[in-house]
Amino acid sequence: MSMRISELSRETGVPVATIKFYLRERLLPAGRATAATQAQYDGEHVARLRLIRALTDVGQIPLATVRWLLDIVDNGAAATPEAVGAAHDSLPPVVPHGDEPPARALRVVEDLGWAVAPASTALWQLETALAAVEDVGLPLSPARLAAYAGAALDVARVDVADVPTADPQEAVRYVVVGTVLYEPVLLALRRLAQQHVFTSPPGNGQGNDEDPRP
Amino acid sequence: MSMRISELSRETGVPVATIKFYLRERLLPAGRATAATQAQYDGEHVARLRLIRALTDVGQIPLATVRWLLDIVDNGAAATPEAVGAAHDSLPPVVPHGDEPPARALRVVEDLGWAVAPASTALWQLETALAAVEDVGLPLSPARLAAYAGAALDVARVDVADVPTADPQEAVRYVVVGTVLYEPVLLALRRLAQQHVFTSPPGNGQGNDEDPRP
Repeated sequence: MSMRISELSRETGVPVATIKFYLRERLLPAGRATAATQAQYDGEHVARLRLIRALTDVGQIPLATVRWLLDIVDNGAAATPEAVGAAHDSLPPVVPHGDEPPARALRVVEDLGWAVAPASTALWQLETALAAVEDVGLPLSPARLAAYAGAALDVARVDVADVPTADPQEAVRYVVVGTVLYEPVLLALRRLAQQHVFTSPPGNGQGNDEDPRP
Repeated sequence: MSMRISELSRETGVPVATIKFYLRERLLPAGRATAATQAQYDGEHVARLRLIRALTDVGQIPLATVRWLLDIVDNGAAATPEAVGAAHDSLPPVVPHGDEPPARALRVVEDLGWAVAPASTALWQLETALAAVEDVGLPLSPARLAAYAGAALDVARVDVADVPTADPQEAVRYVVVGTVLYEPVLLALRRLAQQHVFTSPPGNGQGNDEDPRP
């Protein structure tokens, strides 16, 4: 597959001006020069363009961070726990960050028996999220924590099982891209499941025997 | 509890200028006037300010949408499936939306046996998310779909079980706020669980008997 920039644009739906911008910014590798002002692009360019668009459009990731992520993908270290942590650390959202590991989130993770790096950004995400639900008077109950942690672990197991371990570069690409792009899948499914559960309440534990009013 | 605007600011950490802006924009109800240029605020104002900040800071929700959500909360319809659907529809992210229900997402939900409104915005979120992972060559495998859907259902069950059904207004507040503010909790836990699973691989199903290379 070899094509001009106009065909690359048609194939991916990305405007020519945007492709030129990505080329200038070196987010996209240069094409094979065929004349002073012409170059040919191939399937690798199509794949890279789709990846950039998915990260910016679906992941809502700023271009500076996309560049970072592509660097990680291109220089693909082995998919070690450190690489996974580094990939997570480079992803949005940006959250406030102290010097010490956040106490509450660390306690939650320790109670769960999970092994995570104390410097992980994801711990700060959890800390910030826990503070927010507490601030508005909806603190995380033990039952809810158990359900959320169990669900997170189920999802993480299949996330990690799917990682192609044979090719380190592909593995890191998978972790980085899969982490970001599968988040919207999970969130959409959660909302749809909420509607389903509301519509079809389980036989047990639903009503309060129609207690009319205290 | 009764306080001046300066104390309200200290209590919530929201600058006085921002509080005045929220008052002008009617996101925050007026205080009780005690003089021509003075008013007293109470615990309700503290709670409302914390809610606005949680939605804007953690939920990253634009102010126009916050106003919408607060309207839903204040006018609290009963927590019916329709109200839950409407609450979901008012939440970010904004996704492209056609006239017909999206075919692929609808098929996924039907295969799961979930009852959801075909016009639901969450279906379009799912459709967009599925298209994105497919575009970058990481399509949703049946095993992954099963794990994600099961996790989403576990989470939704506890989400819905926690809803205070006695008070309709509180129930809708709970659904709206809980949906947005618990998303970061779930996503942070997923990332931490990924690190844990990577660090502590399960005994089974991990290696390929150390198959060195094909």
